[in-house]
Amino acid sequence: MKRGFGSDNHSGISPEILEAIKNANVEHALAYGDDEYCKCTEELFKDLFGSQAKVYFVFNGTGANVLNIDAMCRSHHAVVCAETAHINVDECGAPQRIVGSKLLTVPTPDGKLTPDLVRTQLHGFGFEHHSQPRAISITQSTELGTLYTLEEIKALADLAHEYDMYLHMDGARLANAIVSLSKQLGREVSFKEMTTDQGVDCLSFGGTKNGLLMGESAVILNPALDVDMKYRRKQMTQLCSKMRFVAAQFEAYITTGLWRRNAEHSNAMAQLLYNGLKDMAGVKVMYPVQANGVFVQMPRDVWHDLLNEYFFYDWDEAENVVRFMCSFDTTEQDIANFIAAIKRVMER
Amino acid sequence: MKRGFGSDNHSGISPEILEAIKNANVEHALAYGDDEYCKCTEELFKDLFGSQAKVYFVFNGTGANVLNIDAMCRSHHAVVCAETAHINVDECGAPQRIVGSKLLTVPTPDGKLTPDLVRTQLHGFGFEHHSQPRAISITQSTELGTLYTLEEIKALADLAHEYDMYLHMDGARLANAIVSLSKQLGREVSFKEMTTDQGVDCLSFGGTKNGLLMGESAVILNPALDVDMKYRRKQMTQLCSKMRFVAAQFEAYITTGLWRRNAEHSNAMAQLLYNGLKDMAGVKVMYPVQANGVFVQMPRDVWHDLLNEYFFYDWDEAENVVRFMCSFDTTEQDIANFIAAIKRVMER
Amino acid sequence: MKRGFGSDNHSGISPEILEAIKNANVEHALAYGDDEYCKCTEELFKDLFGSQAKVYFVFNGTGANVLNIDAMCRSHHAVVCAETAHINVDECGAPQRIVGSKLLTVPTPDGKLTPDLVRTQLHGFGFEHHSQPRAISITQSTELGTLYTLEEIKALADLAHEYDMYLHMDGARLANAIVSLSKQLGREVSFKEMTTDQGVDCLSFGGTKNGLLMGESAVILNPALDVDMKYRRKQMTQLCSKMRFVAAQFEAYITTGLWRRNAEHSNAMAQLLYNGLKDMAGVKVMYPVQANGVFVQMPRDVWHDLLNEYFFYDWDEAENVVRFMCSFDTTEQDIANFIAAIKRVMER
Amino acid sequence: MKRGFGSDNHSGISPEILEAIKNANVEHALAYGDDEYCKCTEELFKDLFGSQAKVYFVFNGTGANVLNIDAMCRSHHAVVCAETAHINVDECGAPQRIVGSKLLTVPTPDGKLTPDLVRTQLHGFGFEHHSQPRAISITQSTELGTLYTLEEIKALADLAHEYDMYLHMDGARLANAIVSLSKQLGREVSFKEMTTDQGVDCLSFGGTKNGLLMGESAVILNPALDVDMKYRRKQMTQLCSKMRFVAAQFEAYITTGLWRRNAEHSNAMAQLLYNGLKDMAGVKVMYPVQANGVFVQMPRDVWHDLLNEYFFYDWDEAENVVRFMCSFDTTEQDIANFIAAIKRVMER
Repeated sequence: MKRGFGSDNHSGISPEILEAIKNANVEHALAYGDDEYCKCTEELFKDLFGSQAKVYFVFNGTGANVLNIDAMCRSHHAVVCAETAHINVDECGAPQRIVGSKLLTVPTPDGKLTPDLVRTQLHGFGFEHHSQPRAISITQSTELGTLYTLEEIKALADLAHEYDMYLHMDGARLANAIVSLSKQLGREVSFKEMTTDQGVDCLSFGGTKNGLLMGESAVILNPALDVDMKYRRKQMTQLCSKMRFVAAQFEAYITTGLWRRNAEHSNAMAQLLYNGLKDMAGVKVMYPVQANGVFVQMPRDVWHDLLNEYFFYDWDEAENVVRFMCSFDTTEQDIANFIAAIKRVMER
Repeated sequence: MKRGFGSDNHSGISPEILEAIKNANVEHALAYGDDEYCKCTEELFKDLFGSQAKVYFVFNGTGANVLNIDAMCRSHHAVVCAETAHINVDECGAPQRIVGSKLLTVPTPDGKLTPDLVRTQLHGFGFEHHSQPRAISITQSTELGTLYTLEEIKALADLAHEYDMYLHMDGARLANAIVSLSKQLGREVSFKEMTTDQGVDCLSFGGTKNGLLMGESAVILNPALDVDMKYRRKQMTQLCSKMRFVAAQFEAYITTGLWRRNAEHSNAMAQLLYNGLKDMAGVKVMYPVQANGVFVQMPRDVWHDLLNEYFFYDWDEAENVVRFMCSFDTTEQDIANFIAAIKRVMER
Repeated sequence: MKRGFGSDNHSGISPEILEAIKNANVEHALAYGDDEYCKCTEELFKDLFGSQAKVYFVFNGTGANVLNIDAMCRSHHAVVCAETAHINVDECGAPQRIVGSKLLTVPTPDGKLTPDLVRTQLHGFGFEHHSQPRAISITQSTELGTLYTLEEIKALADLAHEYDMYLHMDGARLANAIVSLSKQLGREVSFKEMTTDQGVDCLSFGGTKNGLLMGESAVILNPALDVDMKYRRKQMTQLCSKMRFVAAQFEAYITTGLWRRNAEHSNAMAQLLYNGLKDMAGVKVMYPVQANGVFVQMPRDVWHDLLNEYFFYDWDEAENVVRFMCSFDTTEQDIANFIAAIKRVMER
Repeated sequence: MKRGFGSDNHSGISPEILEAIKNANVEHALAYGDDEYCKCTEELFKDLFGSQAKVYFVFNGTGANVLNIDAMCRSHHAVVCAETAHINVDECGAPQRIVGSKLLTVPTPDGKLTPDLVRTQLHGFGFEHHSQPRAISITQSTELGTLYTLEEIKALADLAHEYDMYLHMDGARLANAIVSLSKQLGREVSFKEMTTDQGVDCLSFGGTKNGLLMGESAVILNPALDVDMKYRRKQMTQLCSKMRFVAAQFEAYITTGLWRRNAEHSNAMAQLLYNGLKDMAGVKVMYPVQANGVFVQMPRDVWHDLLNEYFFYDWDEAENVVRFMCSFDTTEQDIANFIAAIKRVMER
């Protein structure tokens, strides 16, 4: 299938990652994470997120999110999240089934929670008829391609902690967020500054959308949450046998700076696309383009016709909003061709 | 870590599989199984298991088993299995947590269920106080390295169907079973003959223990069970995004005959090991060696000392039974060295 | 505690019900519903709701609702309900924990769903990432004291069935709804007309809030849903041993017309209260008073002071809305005294 | 139905209990346990079991057991119990569904666990592939009518605590156990001596089988387990609205000594039955008769014929073992008639 704008997991594997897998494919290694590759990469995570951080490798983003929710909540607890959160709309009810917990969803203008929005759900504490709010979950960068500032994250963490709650960050696209915020601030923002330092309690840190074959992780930043995690991961079917090959991917991802190169590239491609669309008649860009996704409203017949040439997803069919995702392998020529195609279809 | 006898998932990836992953790493592909690699490999599964077969790729063996149990059972149902079954002893209660079902376990002499053993659990039908027996689960080859004959499988399928129950086969080592039975019968036994033709309703078909990086599957052989499976897989966190790379592994595994070559080799190595141990004083081989595992009883200080040189698992510490697993990359020299080491330690 | 307006389950047991329990207390009876009292009352339910109806007695309203949701849904299904639905706000996440299902909640002006409101949640069918809408749940009379007309119920049932979904009615206060609608229409509306005839698929029919000691039921009106219910009830801890005493309560409730007398009385008391408040300065009645509850907005210091004399619940503290519930044992004098107290406090 | 030997919940309600319900039926009371009856009875439980005891009233024995298991275990934990335990054979898999936990069952000669029997299941600690043993559950008196001594209970509690596990006692028939042990020891054994003093961590204390209409309870004896219990009870559908009527039953049960009178009577009737059967040719009493049940083996045609006159349950059909349960309302004449009937049938 030709390169398109359907999803950042439509792209394949970065060459550095394939090389890392190949290099780890020597002799035997203990299974289930007891090997040297895992030990080494676990140390790398401590370097990234602080010495208290403990990483649990898992298979996919849903696994990472559900394992983190499971660390924060029992079934009578609830998680406050944006209506557009992946855990709410794209996991087929996994948190409900696996943890038994309830999600308390909040409509947002841009995919981002604020303390005021969260507070609308903070009631009923101590009342046994109500699920007890226990966690706030945010996505960085969000499902709408927007970004939380450090101050915004801290404000949510502070609110959570004020109520004896926890803050979870779904970082399926954390790399895109870090490079975007770094560019915006004109200095390098570290993984730790983005998470631990602002009070994030646990993190889903993904690599699959940014060049890995398959590799996600639940990273416990608040040691109080690191209870029985290994049993919980196993029991929810997220324990990998040949885990060295997940660890080796993350090792290469981190140590070679691949996370940054790939994220900077896909973000830059999104900016290029944004620049080509922002002043185009009939097209409205819906949200600030702060990561690798561009959400645009355009006439129905236009995006319908465009689908004949390119694969992408409608995001809100009723409102004629569609989503264009850039990937680490998107080229400048891809963007130019795509903009040209949109113009061509618009002009029909 | 040097090659040892700890587990068949201590070995790495067969070169053919790495090559297949590399070859699939071109351009974009739809995620979540809607790509051409998956479609093509799904057809291969129909060739292997019959045209009614429907494969659902998953991440690991626990995922495959739980998805199959979920297809057969609701929470008030029970699964009859051997006490030694992987679903009973090595999945940390995943069937209980994810499906809510109960396992009705039966002690066996050799890891194999028989109709008579199963019948001890077939009572209480229609009585609402009892979990309702709904499925029989067998492992082929078993966790003890033994093998069901075709007739034995059919007898259990017939019993299951007589009671409106289903037969599940955990085929984490199905390839080892097929080559072993083929050798025993002096003719080629097909995947379909081993499963569909004997009345197996659903199958966990694994590749990870036989040379894949990571690739398992739930194969629905009885179309009556193929209900809402895609939602169930997603909700239990077993839906892979870049699924083309799982499909491509299975495609190479099947079409290049790798499954057979690897399984024949690891089985042969187990026979070689068995031959070196069967007459050794102080060593007792516990079960028929019919796949790639050898279970032996030996003096405690012997296997304790041996652990200084080789990694392997104790299986029944109280009884001083240990497990030696051969893998696709075990060499004849490995076996010779290992037997020599055992002799050396025994003679101290 | 003096009679107040806190809840219709703050009142006790109607004398007819105590008498029925006493009368059933002779000799032995089979446990778990296999007795003559249960058989007889099951027939009464068929008389009320149609010959296809099958009743499952349970302990409480949450049990009835969850058992019905369990009959309609597996864990990957979702239930569309009003934000104010009891299943959403007052069951501490029981549907999520016990069934694993998701609720898709809709804001409403008056606690009532409409086809248009429901349609906002009817999307994503066939998309494995989304919980699949499977049921609509309405409460009759609603948690806000409002009432669905027969036509409104039918419209929701038709919508549900158009999408291969089911309609559940939470009838914790069904008696109040029936007498209210009967009065409004000037003719007797039957249980069957209110439910089965409009296409309701399953019903939670309660008695505890209307004079029973303890007695609720899940009534399956659509036989397609009557699958394995007895096991599901037992496994979710809702099977009563001395069930004859639940059946005997319902028998008296139905055959003596107690359901009607009690409901007519508590509804009439709510009207009396409404009449005393509707024109009072500073007090705003929030919703049509169509059953036994009156929701009013009044100054914060007023309802705070009033709590010194009477027990009742705030409903929306931020908006200063409080709930006054009338019960079968509320007297005209109680209402007069209460109105006088409100006036007194208002005038301070 | 004439009085028989089917179950101790085939009998009805003791007059004292009906009277207590009637007496509590005055005016209004707060729902869900916040009333004076509950507060008062909670104090009574502290008198019985020690000041640290905290009672949670529930509807039925399965509810009490599951709530206690839920207090001790998360889903990756396991409960060691006798194969014959009610939680294993008579709750349709409720612990698996509601808590997600696994039961590790042990065959016993008489329904009683011993430290040695329990130890067969105490392995795999720290190994993430295995459910982690977390609790031992015993039934007092057992499902086979036998009794643990104080020393036996303490030995099991000590074993549990040695492994950081908990001891749960299913006391559905605790009253029968206490009066039996008191008689055996020739002194009065208290509730506290039977439970708290021996190290029991939590208790299911039932009344329904001994004269209550409906009333069971989970009693947390180890305060470390008293975490979030009220939410857990509500979410598992076991929160009663008009809870004063459960509390009032227990209040009468305890303060009037009804628990003792009823239990002494039913135990005495079982002894009478035992005396009539122990030397009867063709009849074999299977277990010591230490509570209110008598298990006997007799020829198949005999018990089949006897079923024409009396209702009772076969316990082990294959072995021709049947169960005769005595109740608080069983009379000496009932026993005499029953023995005569058995003799008559035997002599045919």
